[in-house]
Amino acid sequence: MIDDTHLYREIHEQPQSLRRLIDEQQGVISELADMIQRRHIRHVVIAARGTSDNAGRYAQYLLGAMNGLPVGLTTPSLFTIYRRPPVFDESALVIGISQSGASPDIVAVLESARAQGALTAVLTNTPASPLAEQGDVVIDLCAGEERAVAATKTYTAELAAIALLSALHRGDETMLAALHELPEAVADTLAMEEEIARVAPRYRYMSRCVVISRGFNYATAFEIALKLKELTYTVVEPYSSADFLHGPLAMVEPGFPIFLVAPAGEMSRELVSFCQTLRAREAELIAISDEERILKLARIPLALPHRVPEWLSPVTAIVPGQLLALHLAHTRDYDVDAPRSLQKVTETI
Amino acid sequence: MIDDTHLYREIHEQPQSLRRLIDEQQGVISELADMIQRRHIRHVVIAARGTSDNAGRYAQYLLGAMNGLPVGLTTPSLFTIYRRPPVFDESALVIGISQSGASPDIVAVLESARAQGALTAVLTNTPASPLAEQGDVVIDLCAGEERAVAATKTYTAELAAIALLSALHRGDETMLAALHELPEAVADTLAMEEEIARVAPRYRYMSRCVVISRGFNYATAFEIALKLKELTYTVVEPYSSADFLHGPLAMVEPGFPIFLVAPAGEMSRELVSFCQTLRAREAELIAISDEERILKLARIPLALPHRVPEWLSPVTAIVPGQLLALHLAHTRDYDVDAPRSLQKVTETI
Repeated sequence: MIDDTHLYREIHEQPQSLRRLIDEQQGVISELADMIQRRHIRHVVIAARGTSDNAGRYAQYLLGAMNGLPVGLTTPSLFTIYRRPPVFDESALVIGISQSGASPDIVAVLESARAQGALTAVLTNTPASPLAEQGDVVIDLCAGEERAVAATKTYTAELAAIALLSALHRGDETMLAALHELPEAVADTLAMEEEIARVAPRYRYMSRCVVISRGFNYATAFEIALKLKELTYTVVEPYSSADFLHGPLAMVEPGFPIFLVAPAGEMSRELVSFCQTLRAREAELIAISDEERILKLARIPLALPHRVPEWLSPVTAIVPGQLLALHLAHTRDYDVDAPRSLQKVTETI
Repeated sequence: MIDDTHLYREIHEQPQSLRRLIDEQQGVISELADMIQRRHIRHVVIAARGTSDNAGRYAQYLLGAMNGLPVGLTTPSLFTIYRRPPVFDESALVIGISQSGASPDIVAVLESARAQGALTAVLTNTPASPLAEQGDVVIDLCAGEERAVAATKTYTAELAAIALLSALHRGDETMLAALHELPEAVADTLAMEEEIARVAPRYRYMSRCVVISRGFNYATAFEIALKLKELTYTVVEPYSSADFLHGPLAMVEPGFPIFLVAPAGEMSRELVSFCQTLRAREAELIAISDEERILKLARIPLALPHRVPEWLSPVTAIVPGQLLALHLAHTRDYDVDAPRSLQKVTETI
């Protein structure tokens, strides 16, 4: 039974885990926001792998747009394999993100950053971990133990922690109010499950596809692609709609499956025009959206039932992606809690 | 005839175009290197799309490892769609990379950076372009007109320009000497063509694959994947070997095609161990390498004939990738100069 799996339960636990994070971690996240101001941080560097790296992509857009902070994703091999770390001075904030807090390459980046005098922060579900030891500030994701190999509730907790940091750094009450409604929005979004379970068998024999978005939901495209790869063994590549036009568009032939993540907002106009380009090439378009113009252009519209502000929409828009990966894996009779070749904690150097 | 195409000619022109760049642009690149020192640049931000973005990935590793500069790839939509650009002050160097210099989103990033007081530099094959107007320093790629839609000689010129910047910023004579030998190394590498033409038909019906490397050649994995997508319409995803272990490894089943880019160097040990992991899963391994241990583990070894230092190897290692994309497209009877759906200049906002 699908609802007797860890993955199913953890997807459905997300409203509660988000509520816990928002209630319990505002204090420590506030401290980090103050330190960013006080220390005149000029740029942010993120070290993460896999799902946590996708949370880093969200931070790149959110802290850039809302807080004016240039954010880059780092290159751990410079620290571990080449042993030639870039210079991080006191103007840098280096954030390590990891569910387990155990991957040696991410620990190595934080260790070097701290030794060089940068401010360090850690987002982890395991506050007693080697990574947490390297954080000047440690944010506990409060997600409870995650037992499925594919991360779900820790991902949305990571996004919410980043959103809280952005809101508290701005001292923005409107953003904070939207965050407090987020657990309810996620609960409403889980109601998409019935429709997604019905649609999943259509993709039983799909061997390759792309997932596309842009802006705040660029991260969502990456995370949906990763869930589909881990759980359904499909070759799935994520793209920004702009990058896709610079070459990869050539791959599209009639029936080519394209998942589009397009919650309503400032990106909508751009993505409507992108949908028209794909329609002209007869792609099979599956749209996760609450924007009528987008849903109408899709062969398979997946309507998001609860609209949230665009900057927060990655937290709701990932939910149908998680559910799709779960149900497609189930359709293919794969083990959703223990995908082949993977362990829960991956340690890379 | 394949040798009567622009793409074929432009791939084979690379030794000459690299020689031109190295001879003619050292002066202006030296000026940029001096400005980085004089202005106490603390971090670098790169704006680019498609092939040029892959050159940006090389800069991230090279300027990080050799020059201690943290380098991030930017998010153009924050400038164009959301109109909320991050703050770039005088401690930032923002580099725009574009063959055509025409894409409005890349121009917008440089324009904002310059208005905010950051140092700006432009790498372009079109010095009379809107992008070049936004550069405090403009580096001409000197590649001559590129007529095939898929970029080849402008890519290696971009890499060489970045390598020159790194060497001149360090004032490193050993690096400069290696750069001067580079055109000859690329000429020698072109001799792989015969073997690659023989191997290409084996992949006539390959619909999906991945291209993997790590470190300096992370960029090469991305660029080979892009050439294969543009020219052969295959779904190809690039990965770092470390990221691949954090989830995507689940996709690998017996016969799954994996192209590995593994020139000899500090990354070799890591990639040997990665090859063993793939062998255990019976993947079809195609290795571009001059490292015996790697070539021995591959089903299809593609031996690089001219060893260059690891930091410079992305310029030679891309060549067999370009040749493979050319010959695989030819095997499939595709138009290698004008892939479907693409134009030479893609303008995104």
